[in-house]
Amino acid sequence: MPELRKDPISRRWVIIATERAARPTDFKHEGIEVNDLDRCPFCEGREDRTPPEIYAVRAAGTAPNGKGWTVRVVSNKFPALRIEGSTQRTKVGLFTRMDGVGAHEVIIEATDHHTHLGLLPVEHVVQIIRAYLQRYRDLRGDARFEYALLFRNHGRTAGASLSHPHSQLIALPVVPKRVAEELDAAERHFGQHGVCIYCAILEQEQQGRDRLIFENEAFVALAPYASRFPFETLILPKRHEADFGALPPDQERLLAQALREMLHRLHICLDNPPYNFIIHTLPYRSEAKHAHHWHVEIMPRLTQVAGFEWGSGFYINPVVPEEAARYLREAIPAPMPVGPVSAGRPHGEVGDRMRDS
Amino acid sequence: MPELRKDPISRRWVIIATERAARPTDFKHEGIEVNDLDRCPFCEGREDRTPPEIYAVRAAGTAPNGKGWTVRVVSNKFPALRIEGSTQRTKVGLFTRMDGVGAHEVIIEATDHHTHLGLLPVEHVVQIIRAYLQRYRDLRGDARFEYALLFRNHGRTAGASLSHPHSQLIALPVVPKRVAEELDAAERHFGQHGVCIYCAILEQEQQGRDRLIFENEAFVALAPYASRFPFETLILPKRHEADFGALPPDQERLLAQALREMLHRLHICLDNPPYNFIIHTLPYRSEAKHAHHWHVEIMPRLTQVAGFEWGSGFYINPVVPEEAARYLREAIPAPMPVGPVSAGRPHGEVGDRMRDS
Repeated sequence: MPELRKDPISRRWVIIATERAARPTDFKHEGIEVNDLDRCPFCEGREDRTPPEIYAVRAAGTAPNGKGWTVRVVSNKFPALRIEGSTQRTKVGLFTRMDGVGAHEVIIEATDHHTHLGLLPVEHVVQIIRAYLQRYRDLRGDARFEYALLFRNHGRTAGASLSHPHSQLIALPVVPKRVAEELDAAERHFGQHGVCIYCAILEQEQQGRDRLIFENEAFVALAPYASRFPFETLILPKRHEADFGALPPDQERLLAQALREMLHRLHICLDNPPYNFIIHTLPYRSEAKHAHHWHVEIMPRLTQVAGFEWGSGFYINPVVPEEAARYLREAIPAPMPVGPVSAGRPHGEVGDRMRDS
Repeated sequence: MPELRKDPISRRWVIIATERAARPTDFKHEGIEVNDLDRCPFCEGREDRTPPEIYAVRAAGTAPNGKGWTVRVVSNKFPALRIEGSTQRTKVGLFTRMDGVGAHEVIIEATDHHTHLGLLPVEHVVQIIRAYLQRYRDLRGDARFEYALLFRNHGRTAGASLSHPHSQLIALPVVPKRVAEELDAAERHFGQHGVCIYCAILEQEQQGRDRLIFENEAFVALAPYASRFPFETLILPKRHEADFGALPPDQERLLAQALREMLHRLHICLDNPPYNFIIHTLPYRSEAKHAHHWHVEIMPRLTQVAGFEWGSGFYINPVVPEEAARYLREAIPAPMPVGPVSAGRPHGEVGDRMRDS
């Protein structure tokens, strides 16, 4: 019997196909194409092909916008939003518009075109986390911005148009719908129970343990009870904290470890799958520090989102979250591969037969 | 300057990339693969490969589950939900679960493996609409179901795993999140203004006309002001009606014409693109007939949904809706093609450069 599970935060129901649960090897994906090495603007030595750097981790004595960096942040050359303009809203009859004001930055994570966040040494990932934090904190100073969304697209299926390892940051003059929904639910729960709903979930999951995947002193990684996607993962700080920007320096390495560990396990379990991850945090101007709890959502992109999902806002997940957690728990980290990253299994159908006839 | 537009119903902001607006030919897609003809269970003469038919339009004198049909409805052989079971909800600590109870049916739209809804004669589409209505009305009788979602996936990118033309219907024991959101917004608007928000939008759009694409006596097709996707289209009945199931017989042909017309225009404009469409209607047990307004959402799948969209619930649309409407208005319907349908342009990158760096 398939099972319907409700996410208590988004109030979304997910259909979990418990009957013919898929295994990691059932998901054939396109692999991570690396076909743009010759024209990659993010490789070392091509710093003039990007807008000037905003932030960089550099070897002593090297000049900005030249070689010698480890992590480099630049403006997106084709930004979704522009930094100039006002946030004045205008009514167009029933509709509302404003200028597309915002910041759109790219965090180039390494000089190596072929690596990715799950394969880099933890010490390197610490540098990336510090770049996230520096940019996240800096953009808070622009009073026009209500939110800054950090995200990563890995692989063409996950929306990446360049294969060189990078994340992105988009600062917005409005609070994202998804974040507003989380915040509403968290405030409602706090109002009723006097406790942060994420803290309560963490406590429940640490007792049950069948959805836990990894933990260290400061972070827990788990498979959400109502996971939308096969092998979806949530990373939460153990101590209540609404604001990603408040990460204390002594937790930077622990976050880097948890993030790298989960991406590494996904890499092993699913043969370098396409994925997105996003960081959800308290909006810049929100006072609801008591209710929200910042977190990272990692979404492997192994199934298609189709009419049912678009029409309902619900999802069909062919992998039982407890099974996904078990696979990811048991994925023993292998030694770092030498040479180019696996390009994944050959092109084939995604495992979406459950959804269609 | 890019523009931020807010949808007044979903409260979702969309980034419209007005600066380097894409044209229809900028979207290269994979085309509609037809590689399963030999093993297609929906072709005529293979009726024994599907579960028994629930409904069919048949030539006089032909027997069920044999040749001689035009439109045929069967249960999905691999259903997302099962018809047996109870809708008892159980608490699992903070979470809620219930049996995966529901109906999952397939509407096989034609015997011809190579056609699709935008290429069939209007009279044939009328038969498909009647099949939708018959199944939609029939499932209302099962008191466990709160909603029945009709949807269509066209092409692998849009989640179809079989290329034979078909739609699907999933009856659910809960109201979909997306529908509940629409209903909340519609009721809020009705409470404030005493008028259906969809009727108000229709009135505004029929005055402005720059987002109108097509209309007949009973239906209007338009590009939504805050379209999430390039060439997204909305079909609305002109007269206020919340319930798709209440479609009067004299409007069946007009709905078939509007739907066929829009899918035909998309076919011409975008070279047989992958798409999803969904029908949103009043939940079976809702009393809010005054506020909601049933409609069809057509979503061509030309761009990738990536980290930004997953993390924000917002979208980046590289086509200005007024431009999309103009292209679709000016796509003069060509005569019906003879022989197999175009397989689209060669495989290539989707036009998502706006989103990524």
